[in-house]
Amino acid sequence: MKTGRLEAFSDGVIAIIITIMVLEMKVPKGDSLNSLKPLIPVFISYVLSFINIGIYWNNHHHMLSASTSVNGKVLWANIHLLFWLSLIPFLTGWMGENHFSKWPVILYGINLIMAGTAYTLLAKALIQLHGKNSTLADAFGKDWKGKISIIIYAAGICLCFINAWLGFSMYVVVAGIWFIPDRRIEKKLTEQPANE
Amino acid sequence: MKTGRLEAFSDGVIAIIITIMVLEMKVPKGDSLNSLKPLIPVFISYVLSFINIGIYWNNHHHMLSASTSVNGKVLWANIHLLFWLSLIPFLTGWMGENHFSKWPVILYGINLIMAGTAYTLLAKALIQLHGKNSTLADAFGKDWKGKISIIIYAAGICLCFINAWLGFSMYVVVAGIWFIPDRRIEKKLTEQPANE
Amino acid sequence: MKTGRLEAFSDGVIAIIITIMVLEMKVPKGDSLNSLKPLIPVFISYVLSFINIGIYWNNHHHMLSASTSVNGKVLWANIHLLFWLSLIPFLTGWMGENHFSKWPVILYGINLIMAGTAYTLLAKALIQLHGKNSTLADAFGKDWKGKISIIIYAAGICLCFINAWLGFSMYVVVAGIWFIPDRRIEKKLTEQPANE
Amino acid sequence: MKTGRLEAFSDGVIAIIITIMVLEMKVPKGDSLNSLKPLIPVFISYVLSFINIGIYWNNHHHMLSASTSVNGKVLWANIHLLFWLSLIPFLTGWMGENHFSKWPVILYGINLIMAGTAYTLLAKALIQLHGKNSTLADAFGKDWKGKISIIIYAAGICLCFINAWLGFSMYVVVAGIWFIPDRRIEKKLTEQPANE
Repeated sequence: MKTGRLEAFSDGVIAIIITIMVLEMKVPKGDSLNSLKPLIPVFISYVLSFINIGIYWNNHHHMLSASTSVNGKVLWANIHLLFWLSLIPFLTGWMGENHFSKWPVILYGINLIMAGTAYTLLAKALIQLHGKNSTLADAFGKDWKGKISIIIYAAGICLCFINAWLGFSMYVVVAGIWFIPDRRIEKKLTEQPANE
Repeated sequence: MKTGRLEAFSDGVIAIIITIMVLEMKVPKGDSLNSLKPLIPVFISYVLSFINIGIYWNNHHHMLSASTSVNGKVLWANIHLLFWLSLIPFLTGWMGENHFSKWPVILYGINLIMAGTAYTLLAKALIQLHGKNSTLADAFGKDWKGKISIIIYAAGICLCFINAWLGFSMYVVVAGIWFIPDRRIEKKLTEQPANE
Repeated sequence: MKTGRLEAFSDGVIAIIITIMVLEMKVPKGDSLNSLKPLIPVFISYVLSFINIGIYWNNHHHMLSASTSVNGKVLWANIHLLFWLSLIPFLTGWMGENHFSKWPVILYGINLIMAGTAYTLLAKALIQLHGKNSTLADAFGKDWKGKISIIIYAAGICLCFINAWLGFSMYVVVAGIWFIPDRRIEKKLTEQPANE
Repeated sequence: MKTGRLEAFSDGVIAIIITIMVLEMKVPKGDSLNSLKPLIPVFISYVLSFINIGIYWNNHHHMLSASTSVNGKVLWANIHLLFWLSLIPFLTGWMGENHFSKWPVILYGINLIMAGTAYTLLAKALIQLHGKNSTLADAFGKDWKGKISIIIYAAGICLCFINAWLGFSMYVVVAGIWFIPDRRIEKKLTEQPANE
């Protein structure tokens, strides 16, 4: 089976996830700038989640463009990833409306770890299908970026017990690390344009 | 007519259905772990529905990748399937918010039977178009999996009159049966790669 | 410009319109069958709108599959059609929640006339681009089906001043007429498979 | 990397943005024409935003159809544009529900400036990738239309301090300027059909 429809479905789901988050920002009653004030934390959490989902789409795009086919296992690994991503709007809203208090920030972090793990599982399912010597396997490498992210997320969760903003700032650090798209794959693809 | 746009439209609708279900999980007022407790049944019904929709997308993907063209009848059979799937978010919410009480679980089951029947009708419309000797007809075979599912769903609905959780567990059994993608088609396609 | 992206965007918008309508069916408080009773009119209006949107997607699919290119005018004619379709969820909800009382049914009908007119304008923009001797122009013909629909809708609107259900039943008649996909185009395409 | 998936994802996000705006028009309680009256300003702001998003999709379509490939920078420039567009439904609702009072109209204008700037950045990222002598660079030219738009938006924002409707009318003027799709690119593409 070709990658086309998996990409289309993932694009659809990710597009909806990234967009319905904005529905958590309820239109305020007043029309003054002050009436927007209570929305500031909701907006901050929206921005971080928008960037996080953007990062996932970006990396998903890179990974699939280095893939040539999919199988049943890959389809389910992908749906598993989409499941964790689908919880982000809920946790974004919960975190924002509670002004980044402890438990919402912790659960948001746990969700990010689950999504990160699901992404790694998807990568492994794709590598298993394409072979250990494929462009994909080569580009994915030892996935130090993914491993470091999980560690920083876990550190962030622990820091929440001291101060939730401190924990939250760890998530921002990870987003910063990933903001730059996965050059590993882009580089490999450029080196072997015939494979694209 | 090619299958492309039918797949694209179905991907769009299924992607939205699978994602808007999360909107039924309303952000709770409190910020403690306890404030999430009332959401647990909603979350459980969300997980089952997410898997069910995932199964439909998966099988839809397999079935269409074994098809080469569509006609007006197929288009309507597909819209009919999407109609029953579109009711899943509503029934998921109703079932979750009422902690799996009798009537919501029964109606959820009836909806699953209707969706299952609609899927069979879509398969038959596609087989009629491609011929009884097509890869698709061969792969679909006698559809024992589909028939058994309907029987287990019906059993689950009956069990609801004794205990709704018992009925619900039958639906989980069916999801378990289908969790493995339809290897029949995948196998046939691999055997005849030229047809793909 | 190719038709691909116009189709993709329209598929996306129509998929969302057809799916968000279900959000108008609010999960009821109780868990008995009786608690669903107030939703019956909402459900009926949902079913009609689902079929109507399905018809538009179906015909849109047929029309675009007979087209080979688009221009700026076609893009705007298409956005114009999507605008009127986008109002259907709102009017569906208003009509259902008010149990098919006069004004909601009238405005629903006016909206259907606007959407029908927008569809004709889109067809004309496409025919202008492809030429009067194109398969498309030939298949579209004198559009008696479209013209009769407008007349029946208008009759339905007038009947609403006597009885809104009578008016509503006229809309059902039009849906019945269109339920069968536009065989004209399908037929023409089959006759000239090389053009497809 | 090809442009296909960037287009698909953008189509998805823009399709959702243009459609969920209609959810801001809450179904009114009554069933008379009078009960729709309070929705008129919401409807007006909906129409303008629908046209604005339509313009962005249209120009995005033209720009990408003149592009042949994308890189990481383009992906992020595109996500950045989608971010500002994603805020339009929120600001549309806020502006409509407050009957075009000062601050909502000002923030709507600032958002339009941000989206316009993001569009220019995306265009520049694409031109950088395709070269200064590409069809794209040639068609984009000096972007006087984009620059004039920003100036009129800024003028509109200033006018809001006198009268918000006056400011709002400036945004309508810009929509009028852009309503006609970017003929520059369409023209260039027609001149060089081999490049398409």
